[in-house]
Amino acid sequence: MISKVKNAMSTLVGGMIPHGHHHPSGTGQNSGSSEGLPPRFPYGRPDFLDLTPELLQYSTEHASRPVLMLRRDSRLPWRTGYAEVINAGKSMLNEDQASCEKLFVKKPSGKHRSAPLQEDTGDATGIPLHFWGVYDGHAGSGAAIAASKLLHRLIRDRLGEVAHLLEHPACPPPICLAKNGSPYQATESKKAAAAAAAAAAVAQQQGEGAAAEEPDAISDPTIRYHMEKVVSVESLVMGVLENAFRQMDELIEKEKASYTISGGCCALAAVQMLGKLYVANAGDSRAIIIRNDEVIPMSNEFTPESERQRLQYLGFLRPELLGNEFTHMEFPRRIQHSELGQKMLFRDHSMTGWAYRTIVEDDLKFPLIYGEGKKARVMATIGVTRGLGDHDLKVYNSNIHIKPFLSCCPEVKVYDLSENKHGPDDVLVMGTDGLWDVTTDQEVADAVSTFLSGCDPSDPMRYTLAAQDLLMRSRGVLKERGWRLPSDRLGSGDDITVFVIPLAGHEGET
Amino acid sequence: MISKVKNAMSTLVGGMIPHGHHHPSGTGQNSGSSEGLPPRFPYGRPDFLDLTPELLQYSTEHASRPVLMLRRDSRLPWRTGYAEVINAGKSMLNEDQASCEKLFVKKPSGKHRSAPLQEDTGDATGIPLHFWGVYDGHAGSGAAIAASKLLHRLIRDRLGEVAHLLEHPACPPPICLAKNGSPYQATESKKAAAAAAAAAAVAQQQGEGAAAEEPDAISDPTIRYHMEKVVSVESLVMGVLENAFRQMDELIEKEKASYTISGGCCALAAVQMLGKLYVANAGDSRAIIIRNDEVIPMSNEFTPESERQRLQYLGFLRPELLGNEFTHMEFPRRIQHSELGQKMLFRDHSMTGWAYRTIVEDDLKFPLIYGEGKKARVMATIGVTRGLGDHDLKVYNSNIHIKPFLSCCPEVKVYDLSENKHGPDDVLVMGTDGLWDVTTDQEVADAVSTFLSGCDPSDPMRYTLAAQDLLMRSRGVLKERGWRLPSDRLGSGDDITVFVIPLAGHEGET
Repeated sequence: MISKVKNAMSTLVGGMIPHGHHHPSGTGQNSGSSEGLPPRFPYGRPDFLDLTPELLQYSTEHASRPVLMLRRDSRLPWRTGYAEVINAGKSMLNEDQASCEKLFVKKPSGKHRSAPLQEDTGDATGIPLHFWGVYDGHAGSGAAIAASKLLHRLIRDRLGEVAHLLEHPACPPPICLAKNGSPYQATESKKAAAAAAAAAAVAQQQGEGAAAEEPDAISDPTIRYHMEKVVSVESLVMGVLENAFRQMDELIEKEKASYTISGGCCALAAVQMLGKLYVANAGDSRAIIIRNDEVIPMSNEFTPESERQRLQYLGFLRPELLGNEFTHMEFPRRIQHSELGQKMLFRDHSMTGWAYRTIVEDDLKFPLIYGEGKKARVMATIGVTRGLGDHDLKVYNSNIHIKPFLSCCPEVKVYDLSENKHGPDDVLVMGTDGLWDVTTDQEVADAVSTFLSGCDPSDPMRYTLAAQDLLMRSRGVLKERGWRLPSDRLGSGDDITVFVIPLAGHEGET
Repeated sequence: MISKVKNAMSTLVGGMIPHGHHHPSGTGQNSGSSEGLPPRFPYGRPDFLDLTPELLQYSTEHASRPVLMLRRDSRLPWRTGYAEVINAGKSMLNEDQASCEKLFVKKPSGKHRSAPLQEDTGDATGIPLHFWGVYDGHAGSGAAIAASKLLHRLIRDRLGEVAHLLEHPACPPPICLAKNGSPYQATESKKAAAAAAAAAAVAQQQGEGAAAEEPDAISDPTIRYHMEKVVSVESLVMGVLENAFRQMDELIEKEKASYTISGGCCALAAVQMLGKLYVANAGDSRAIIIRNDEVIPMSNEFTPESERQRLQYLGFLRPELLGNEFTHMEFPRRIQHSELGQKMLFRDHSMTGWAYRTIVEDDLKFPLIYGEGKKARVMATIGVTRGLGDHDLKVYNSNIHIKPFLSCCPEVKVYDLSENKHGPDDVLVMGTDGLWDVTTDQEVADAVSTFLSGCDPSDPMRYTLAAQDLLMRSRGVLKERGWRLPSDRLGSGDDITVFVIPLAGHEGET
């Protein structure tokens, strides 16, 4: 994530120390108490790359920016393709991370209730689950590494808690569970459910346009329990993903008492289970499905611009979070003291258009959201508004915390694998913003389709080579005037990570 | 709006009193101080219907629900079509209102600065503007009538303040204005603007992928003013619409000190000016463009379901607004005391999926959002979440105000008339929810296209007849078992109001 946190110049001052401590630069992240604490996980590249220490060192050469890819004998599931490259110098290390796992969701049994975050035992029973994660770190690698090691386990463990409800997708999960996990229904509620069923039958008979008055639900206790929403298995999985992200964020906060976990990270996770593909995104990475050369967006980005109104609303409702330094209003540029009393364009949390307002003293404060496009920042500091970590992030030279404005909650999109047919060139592409800043969705789709159609369909390397091809299109080649694309436009100077995941043959997989 | 506010049985207890006072039922709207105050405007139907007192009385017959349409000699602009019908008995009067106006936006001159809300003088100079408004009242007609009389004038007056900036759409409006309305630029700012222009030129040369570091904007005063956002004329008009809705809402609140202005209303407004069509919506009315038989949605509905997360977020941040009676959490049904300690499905402001949580005492409170579809309610009271009025609306038998959860801010969509060609059957349809609850967008499009293609293109009544046709499709006919559609499904028992507005020939109109 390039220059996404201002003032975070580089994460390491003494060169790469893969197994030692590493110190956040401390300008944006005033971690204070973490001085001298060991890192939660040592720095490294994803395990599935099988890098030797020499290759690991080689991968950090900013001058040549070598592309790392999966080896031919990689055993990633689904012939998953992967490639990555380090940034052009904005940070010592590659702050992107990635993970790809096959896991099994198990019901917690009475005897050995799954210890949280347990290691994989190799026991291949339970509901199979495939996982791909892309993490784009900023102001240090700690949060991205921790998430790449732990998020998928949290997801698996939380899915385990509801495993017995997932196996019958046609059966909606019960609304209430007893402590032992079995459906719970109070006596009164049973009566109510029967009444509700009867009422629903009548309503159906009357047709949807029914204008019948419902008795008052709040004041009449006898009909208080009539309404029961039906919740789908799909939305139960979505809830698991949402809460696993939250739990991951809390875990980072908690473990900072014992470890150094530097910075924060965007997180983009894809989970395939029971014939569906769930994509959860918190940050500005992106996932698209390419099917029949067409683009199906699987995520939205969360940035100061896309989340302006949410952030301004919070600043408006909780002005104390702005620390008397910022205003929740947006202006098209900074205001000068000499302009007091003039009229300036503005917009607040309730507006998408602009209007003039007479400038008052308070408007001279720095705007909560400022800048455009890739340079838009929250509190002049951070360029993404969702992700994990950043608990200690403060505005430069101040005691104003930024975390309250950041959300760790992902948006989850669902794609029904079993309802679609896929050819060998139909893929899910997941990439950090380094990829998408330079190459559009359609360009990615065209490139992948062109590349794969020229590849032997049986070549196990074809998806990794496609990932490499995409990466090269965004990185470009080093010329006199920096990294350049064939068009001579500047390539991305950011870390770039790309998964290319084939979808064919997994439609019926459960 | 049918039964959208619970406990508001009917707005008038003594029959229709077109020129007298009318009293809100007082169960939901505890207006208190308005006792004995005169209405702001007398009850009536839109002026453009030219109803005689006899016809006005006739229009209120719930048993026959006569359809009111424009007369053949109507002088509404653009051959606008219009039809309306009263509800099946849920309130004494038709709580829908409508307006259609041709106005002229004038620069406020030094001499006779436009008095706010001035009546039209017939002076046809200035920028012409066409306006259509649809207002769906609840718990009384007062707010809807006031809005139908005043909102378009507020819009015109606010547009007048920026009229000199609207006439050159290619010229972005200045960011800062002096008190006299002329562009204002501080000395320092001029230097900064020059520097910004130079920086922009460099950036352009470097290409969009430029990874150059921007100096720190908050700490370095010399570069503080570099960034200037370009604001379009279009977003200035959007800002005017947004602020005019807010001003209308404030006006209702203010005038309640002197008048009875009962209830609240959804507001849907279309403004055509300078080759563009702006549609602003606050509530659950709907507008679509039908072009070449295809539907172009021009609004989204704002309901407890569509705005659940905004409302829950407010309840979470400001729990005191929930009055110790409500919880911001959503559950699929009410919880019983006996279920304490069990696990129940829930979702909060950050979730779209569902998860289980152990039930605590606090969860026994009534959910802020409860019910599904047309029966979803905020605080068990109101079924829409945006609109005008409702300042005195409280939860039944409590002192909990609902207004803080309601927004008066519309969402504005823009359609470029001048960039599209339109045939005589291409129209904008605006309707209250009574229309759309029973008939889908596509059904409306099919019906309009079929109806208009069978009509003489030169018939001045064709769009009014199309509006009548749409209305009949949603109202149905009275049979033994109530108002029924040809399919025997129940028709809408709500008030229904429909505009059908032809678009052909107005592409170049400014």
